[in-house]
Amino acid sequence: MEDIITVAHGSGGKIARKLIENYIKKYFLCPELKTLEDGAIIKINSKKAVLTTDSFVITPYFFSGGDIGKLSICGTVNDLTAMGAEPLYLTCGFILEEGLKIANFIKILKSMKKTAKQAGVKIVAGDTKVVPKSKGDGIYINTTGYGELIDENLKISVLNAKPGNVVIITGNIGDHEIAILKDREGLKFSADIKSDCAPLNNMIKKLIKNKIRINVMRDPTRGGVAGVLNEIAKSSNVDIEIYEEKLPINKVVIAASSMMGFEPLFLANEGKMIIILEDKDAEKALKILRKSNLGKNSAIIGYCKKGNGIVKIKTKTGGMRILLQPEREQLPRIC
Amino acid sequence: MEDIITVAHGSGGKIARKLIENYIKKYFLCPELKTLEDGAIIKINSKKAVLTTDSFVITPYFFSGGDIGKLSICGTVNDLTAMGAEPLYLTCGFILEEGLKIANFIKILKSMKKTAKQAGVKIVAGDTKVVPKSKGDGIYINTTGYGELIDENLKISVLNAKPGNVVIITGNIGDHEIAILKDREGLKFSADIKSDCAPLNNMIKKLIKNKIRINVMRDPTRGGVAGVLNEIAKSSNVDIEIYEEKLPINKVVIAASSMMGFEPLFLANEGKMIIILEDKDAEKALKILRKSNLGKNSAIIGYCKKGNGIVKIKTKTGGMRILLQPEREQLPRIC
Repeated sequence: MEDIITVAHGSGGKIARKLIENYIKKYFLCPELKTLEDGAIIKINSKKAVLTTDSFVITPYFFSGGDIGKLSICGTVNDLTAMGAEPLYLTCGFILEEGLKIANFIKILKSMKKTAKQAGVKIVAGDTKVVPKSKGDGIYINTTGYGELIDENLKISVLNAKPGNVVIITGNIGDHEIAILKDREGLKFSADIKSDCAPLNNMIKKLIKNKIRINVMRDPTRGGVAGVLNEIAKSSNVDIEIYEEKLPINKVVIAASSMMGFEPLFLANEGKMIIILEDKDAEKALKILRKSNLGKNSAIIGYCKKGNGIVKIKTKTGGMRILLQPEREQLPRIC
Repeated sequence: MEDIITVAHGSGGKIARKLIENYIKKYFLCPELKTLEDGAIIKINSKKAVLTTDSFVITPYFFSGGDIGKLSICGTVNDLTAMGAEPLYLTCGFILEEGLKIANFIKILKSMKKTAKQAGVKIVAGDTKVVPKSKGDGIYINTTGYGELIDENLKISVLNAKPGNVVIITGNIGDHEIAILKDREGLKFSADIKSDCAPLNNMIKKLIKNKIRINVMRDPTRGGVAGVLNEIAKSSNVDIEIYEEKLPINKVVIAASSMMGFEPLFLANEGKMIIILEDKDAEKALKILRKSNLGKNSAIIGYCKKGNGIVKIKTKTGGMRILLQPEREQLPRIC
């Protein structure tokens, strides 16, 4: 590994994974951290609770469909959700750069308040630090979330995908990263594209309350659908096959990706969930998801098979190719 | 208020307080946040738990007596401790600047591991982001802590100082900020001075287990002893009188402060606690504190009196002056 930190170390790709595996995990390993889920399950009295943390450094901090404040709430709410937990309390830590307009800070605070209300979580503690000009970039936010498992009998884990399981995605892929790209580069697209940034806890809770047996759940942020599926396939030691024609995707995202040479399956999402579950529950789950505005484009995109950690995609023309884990981000600082 | 963020907004002084009161509290107000303690008490099942968060942006990130990693563990452990909680779980979020030497990152991780072990807390979740050069400053760390109240009957709060209560500090003041100043500016002092950065949970737990009735507890970090005492006096609506001759302070800190024009009572500490308690418990508490290496210089420095939020200091020459809350930090980025 290189001896300095590079932007790739912050991506959802292989290089970032190595940093975590070789260093962070090495020093911080404890039973709660061992499978590198989106959060840690801890025992509170007899109840099972989840802690998760995420820092947000996105640029620009106001973007189509959201801002860093909304994103910082959704990101942590969705990480708790992916663990099968009900998000209850958040803390937030601000690192402000000298010169940030207070009006912009207020806009971001308002947006956090609104999103927290929508998700039904409480912001209970905070901290503010200020760094001099050119030691930050306007505003960075850390949110840390506490939640409690909705159903303690449900074992949701990247280790639990099984041959025959169905892979669902809860809507269109790639909207977030393409919206950021557009705003950052000032690109003009004929059609409108917005970040999908949204809290998914209320929708996913309906699945769990309706006794849908979820085996794996992950939100495909940095590293995209390809990153998440590769992690699941390797951790659970199954192959995963997905079908290009089944992937819900906006035409603008296809066009922009092809123009920029991006792989849509590597694009970050901030309001989507990958759900892997028993075949028998799949149709019922889809029905529930599609009733929600945030899940109306939900689709079955593939299946798990016996294997040893390979993700494959069947293309529209009928070919089959291996879908690798992205080496690094296509675009830095998208969250 | 100015319409842009300035370095003073990140201090422990009046300007920082206004930012919190006028904006952050306005949008995030909920019962858990109302008194602006160091953390929030939340109800977990029937048990009372505490969440607290802190971001660390100190420069330099290696300093005499510690580093940003050690500081990030101590800071959050001490915030939980100040709430009367036993620190159990921490999360950590890293914001790394492109170009940070991996060897330095490893040194910091090792230091976090060692300090977490010393404090008996588990690091259970983490996140790493990378920002480009000149959008950060080597490394920023957020730690968020979860703890549980050691004694649920103990009501420790900035609201609870009462006339007649005794004010204890657990050791020498100002070491941390003077050590940072020395390292940052490359100053040479004839005597050695090190940051006091240390986890105080094990020492404070002994007080609580020995039935010492603590009314208020705060660690005097940004804003120093003067900042904390002013906050307590105002929140509890009492006057606080302290005695200059009783203040434990290293000669080097006195000399450096006088040379630089600093007020030692405004200097940040990272391994000290201010404890306000019933008169009858004071001697017993001192005895317990002095048995610990971290508390061997503990001293009674003053008393609470009937009043309306004024902090006064009786000088060595017998004069009495008002000790104001610092307007802003004397030195930025000391934590």
